[in-house]
Amino acid sequence: MAGLIEFWFEFASSYSYPAATRVEAAAGASGIAVAWRPFLLGPIFRDQGWSDSPFNLYPAKGRYMWRDMERLCADLGLPFRRPAAFPRNGLLAARVACSHRDEPWIGDFVRAVYRANFAEDRDISTRETVSALLAGCVADPVAVLKRATDPASKRALARATDEARKLGIFGAPSFVAGGELFWGNDRLAAAIDWSRRAPADT
Amino acid sequence: MAGLIEFWFEFASSYSYPAATRVEAAAGASGIAVAWRPFLLGPIFRDQGWSDSPFNLYPAKGRYMWRDMERLCADLGLPFRRPAAFPRNGLLAARVACSHRDEPWIGDFVRAVYRANFAEDRDISTRETVSALLAGCVADPVAVLKRATDPASKRALARATDEARKLGIFGAPSFVAGGELFWGNDRLAAAIDWSRRAPADT
Repeated sequence: MAGLIEFWFEFASSYSYPAATRVEAAAGASGIAVAWRPFLLGPIFRDQGWSDSPFNLYPAKGRYMWRDMERLCADLGLPFRRPAAFPRNGLLAARVACSHRDEPWIGDFVRAVYRANFAEDRDISTRETVSALLAGCVADPVAVLKRATDPASKRALARATDEARKLGIFGAPSFVAGGELFWGNDRLAAAIDWSRRAPADT
Repeated sequence: MAGLIEFWFEFASSYSYPAATRVEAAAGASGIAVAWRPFLLGPIFRDQGWSDSPFNLYPAKGRYMWRDMERLCADLGLPFRRPAAFPRNGLLAARVACSHRDEPWIGDFVRAVYRANFAEDRDISTRETVSALLAGCVADPVAVLKRATDPASKRALARATDEARKLGIFGAPSFVAGGELFWGNDRLAAAIDWSRRAPADT
C-alpha cells in the first residue's frame, strides 16, 4: 500500500454512515489502506458545551442534515431510513470496534452497525443488536463481546477519544492523511488525494 | 440557461471566498445561471445563540478552518492570507451587493470583496475600502454607495436575511438549486448537479 488514511468515526454520527460505507473501496482504489479509528464524540461535544448532537441543538441544521442524508444515500445507492431515535448510544459497538480494529472483519462490522442504525432503524446500543451484527462477521460473538467489555478495552476507547481531541478532531467523520486533518463525509476524496501526495511513511 | 442556482453568501464567511470565486464559472460550464443572494449571517447566528463566529466560539473548529482554507485556496490557485481580524463586518458591502445584485458587474464586485478580505487582509467594513473596490467595477462608485445606503436598500438586505432564514439557511455559503438547499463550499458541485436534474422552471 502506498499510504494510509485514518478514518475516525462515531457510530451515532449520521454522516459517518456514507463515509464508513465508502472509505475502504475509495482508498483501496488509490492503493491506500484504511486504519479504522472509532472514538466517542460525546466527550468532545461536551468540551464544546454541547450535551446533545448539534443536529438536535440547532433545528435548522438538523432539518438540513436529514434531508441531505436522504439525497446523499440515494446518490450513493445506500439504503436509508431516518432513525426513530437520534443520536443512538454507540458505546458498546465502539468498544467492539476499538478492541478489534485490526481484525480482518472490522470493516464489515462497522458497516453493519451503521446500516443497522441508519437503514434498518435498529437500536445499536443493546448487547442483543451488537451480538446479532457480530454473528454476521465472526465465529464467536460471545468471545468478542467479552474482550470488548474488559477494562483494557474500555481504557483503549477512552485513550482513542483523547487522541482524537489531541489531533484537533471536533466532529465525525474525520480523516487523517499525511499528518493533515479533514472533516466531513464530503472530504473523503480530498483526504485520499492528500494521502497520495504525502510520503508513504506518514 | 438550463437552470438557476442561488448563491447565498455573507462577506465575513471564510468558506464563501472559494465558493464565490468558483460559482459563476462552475455553473456556467453546465449552462446554469447564478443568482447572487447576499445576506447577513449575524442575525441567523444569534437565532442559534451565537454572538460570534462558531470558528471563534469553538477553537478546534477555528484552527481546522484556517488550515483548511490554506489547503483549499492552494488547490484552487487562489491567493490566501489569514485576515488579521475575523469575522470582518461586511454590512456595507452586503448592502451594495443586495441593491445591485442583478447588475452585470455584481460577480466582479463580490469576488473583489472576498479577495480584499481573505487574500489582501483589507478592512472591508469601511466606506473607503468598499469605494475603492467599486472603482474597479463601476464608473460611479459614489452613486452606487448612495443607493446602497438608502432606506429601501437597507430594508432589502433585511428581507433577504429573513428569506434566508425561511429557506432553512443556517450558514454560508449555501446554494439553492431546484428547491433544494445545499450548505458549504464542498457542495457546490452537488448543487449544480441538482440544478441540472431539476425542471428548468424551478
